[in-house]
This record gives sequence, structure tokens and C-alpha cells, in this order.
Amino acid sequence: MRYLLILLLCMPLLGMAQQKGPGYVCPPCGQCDTIVYHQPGICPHCGMTLVLRDTASVPQQQPYSICFYLYNGTEVLDFAGPLEVFSYAGFKIFTVGKTKTPVTVQGILKVNPDYSIQDAPAADIFAIFGGDDDVAAGDPEVISWIKSRDATTKGYFSVCTGAFVLGRAGLLDSLTVTTFHNSIKSLQKAVPSAKVLSNVRYVDNGRIITTAGISAGIDGALHLVAKLRGEAEAMRIARHMEYDKYVPGQGLVVKQ
Amino acid sequence: MRYLLILLLCMPLLGMAQQKGPGYVCPPCGQCDTIVYHQPGICPHCGMTLVLRDTASVPQQQPYSICFYLYNGTEVLDFAGPLEVFSYAGFKIFTVGKTKTPVTVQGILKVNPDYSIQDAPAADIFAIFGGDDDVAAGDPEVISWIKSRDATTKGYFSVCTGAFVLGRAGLLDSLTVTTFHNSIKSLQKAVPSAKVLSNVRYVDNGRIITTAGISAGIDGALHLVAKLRGEAEAMRIARHMEYDKYVPGQGLVVKQ
Repeated sequence: MRYLLILLLCMPLLGMAQQKGPGYVCPPCGQCDTIVYHQPGICPHCGMTLVLRDTASVPQQQPYSICFYLYNGTEVLDFAGPLEVFSYAGFKIFTVGKTKTPVTVQGILKVNPDYSIQDAPAADIFAIFGGDDDVAAGDPEVISWIKSRDATTKGYFSVCTGAFVLGRAGLLDSLTVTTFHNSIKSLQKAVPSAKVLSNVRYVDNGRIITTAGISAGIDGALHLVAKLRGEAEAMRIARHMEYDKYVPGQGLVVKQ
Repeated sequence: MRYLLILLLCMPLLGMAQQKGPGYVCPPCGQCDTIVYHQPGICPHCGMTLVLRDTASVPQQQPYSICFYLYNGTEVLDFAGPLEVFSYAGFKIFTVGKTKTPVTVQGILKVNPDYSIQDAPAADIFAIFGGDDDVAAGDPEVISWIKSRDATTKGYFSVCTGAFVLGRAGLLDSLTVTTFHNSIKSLQKAVPSAKVLSNVRYVDNGRIITTAGISAGIDGALHLVAKLRGEAEAMRIARHMEYDKYVPGQGLVVKQ
């Protein structure tokens, strides 16, 4: 209601801006990027610095789409951290379950997936998370579905033991990767041709990013935003989230 | 399935332990605390060090119950970080919405609340989170419901602008508190008798803990676990979550 009030108060301003253009816009934060202001300043909704609508930077702001695959037993922070980061980067996020039946994450939270594997649209990035990962990694239908999307998937992002799912889909062969600290040896056994690292927040192989356990997904997501939108954007999001302990570059970027 | 296999392999061992007792148990992590082993070691499920079932520490492990109130527009990391922490501390967490209609958090994730305000059971701790907080703070029915539970609520925990909800319920009067960095002034205006601090991860007033924005909820939750279960337990959870940047004591504990 507070934001609604601010928006109502700003309506005349918006009307002027829309008539006179080009105006100033809030960089996409997933909530207020459709509003146009007639002068520079700060977005009253999220505190971001407004940018010129028609600057050269605008083409960079095309939203990436990202599919969050959720299964019963998904670790809640594994996906919630990246969801927070990617939503402020303006990514178009949707959730997919094997079916549309509610998924219970962390044994507690009941989530209704947006899509099932029968009707999920393509996405630029496929994201998979840890927890009871064998629910997904051990399900031939799910693995087959992930493989079937490979031609249209530009990138993969795994958090924690979500790496086992990518491994089962054959996506980690011969790559340098990481996973949850208690699962380093078992991932190495599951994907013998991979080099599985410990003590690294994430490993970026270009098309495939794997992160360490649970909270490391936040760092991996910020790294992906930095890669796609620039380090300043990642730092802005980290500050907004008060993730002030974020240190850029705490992962490994494998030279292609 | 991997864990199921481990459990099946351990079944004879468990049987022996249950006959001979007292045995060793995994400290509660919300997933594996019902298993009894006949010798010390490491929990094969979560990697925790097993403890004697009948040691003096066991009475400390009685679960706290915690009510997570969710509304449309709740910030996802605000509640997911604490949910992760509290679940590994063995707290009994349930979610409540105004009704049982699915709640959309972060504009993306559709969550089915366990209870509505009509049928939610009492809880030791009431937790409230930021986002479009006026959806809850501006709803007299919700505020009235929170007030009606006060006699049975031992503690309150707010993250980010969730503090506005506690403020509207009259719970922050004359306290030292904190909130999201962009909302310090507006919370001060909303609760003139409170002292609203910036640049602190959390403020603990004894019965009421308020945290700074979004990711600071993780630190506040770890602080609450440290308070109720000891710093070693909070550190164990932080390590498990690979939240290795956790620094105990980055909040303010107000002397009572």
C-alpha cells in the first residue's frame, strides 16, 4: 500500500514523462521496471538510481529466462538465494516440478510449480538445486526431459548437490566443478571424468556453473549476474540484499 | 534414494542400538534425528557428530515451535534464510497465511500456507518478514490476530521491513530495533518511541529480535539459535550451510 501510494502520487509525473519521453527508468528489479520518470533521481520503490531509458545500456537489459526445477526435498536456501538475486537482476524466473502437484521443499514449505515437465517453456538458463537430489537425479523421466531441452538451453546453474542432477544428465563430463562440502568425493565417484573441487564458492565453465553448498548459491548467482550484466549490477544487488560480505571473484572461472 | 540405501544398510546396527540403548543420536537437524546408532561417529545423512542419547545436553534439544507468517509480496530470502537455519536447529516450523489461499512471494513463488489465521496453532516464536509489508501491517485483521496470540508467544523475530508489522502491533514501542537500510527513517516515523538503528545486522531486545534487510535474517536466525542452543550449534549450522562468512556477535544485544 505504501508503494501504491507513492505510485499514485507520482502519476502526474509519469504521465508527463510518457508524453514527452525519452525519460528515466529504473533498471529492472523485477518489480518496478515499467515506470518512466521525467527527471533523473532515485526509484521511490527500490532505491535504485534511475537511468536514461534510451541509453546504450538498455539493450543489455533484455530479460534472461531461467527455469528453477524443484522437487520434493529441495533445500530451501539453495534456490531462494539465487531466486532473490536473479529477480533483482530482472530475470524472468519460473518454477517447474515433475508434475504440477505441490512440491515440499526442506520438508516444510509447500510450493506450487508454475509448470510441469509436460508443459514447461524453454528457458535461457536451467537451474537445479541440492537436497534430496536423487529424487531428480534418480528419475529417468526428469533426466530425459533435461537432456531434451539441451539444444535450447544456453546455460546451466547448479547449487550444492544439484550438481548430481547435471552429472546424471551427462553435462559435467570432463569439466571442473564443485558441490556441497560433504559430497565432494561422491560427486567425483559419480562423474569420474570431472575434476571436483572443494573450498571454492563456484566454478564457471562458461556454459555450466556449479556452486558449493546451500548459501554459496547466492555467490554463484551474483557471479552470473556480474558476467551477464556487469560487476556493478552484481554489487548493487548484493548491497540491496545487505549481503555485504559478498566478495567478487571467490570462485574459479575456467578458461575456455 | 542414496540416504534410503544408507539407512537400509544401517538397519541391523539401528536394531541393535534400539535393543541395547542408550546409543548415539544425531543432534536434531530436522531430517535424521530419530535414528539411534550403537557407537559414536558421524551421521551418514548430514555429517553431524553423533552425541550420546542420554547426555545432559538432550533436554536442551526440545523443539521450539515457530510460526512463519507469509503474505503476498513477502521477500523470499527474508524467510528462506531463517527457515534453513531453524530447520537445522530442529525447530518445528509452520507457515501461516491470512487464508489458506496460495501466497505469492517475491512475485514468483506460489506457496501453500499450512494454516490460516483461523486455525493456526500457538507457537513459541512468531516470525514475520519484509517485502510488501503493508499487505500485513495495513490489515487490521492480521494485526488483531497477532495481538491476540501475544499471551502465548514467547518471542518475536522480524526480518527487514517485517519490523513494520511488529510496530503496527505495538510490539516495538520504546525498544531499540532495526530494519531494511532504505526503511530506517520510515520505521522511525512509524514508531516514534523506538530507537531505530542502521548498520547493525540485528538487535535483540530479549523477547523481540529485529534484523536488518533480506540476507541479515540469516545472521539474526543464527544469533537466535546461539542464544537458545549455544554458539557451537549456531557455528555448526553456519558451516553446514557454507555460510562461512558468518561472524558471531555482529548484532546488538540490548541489556534488559
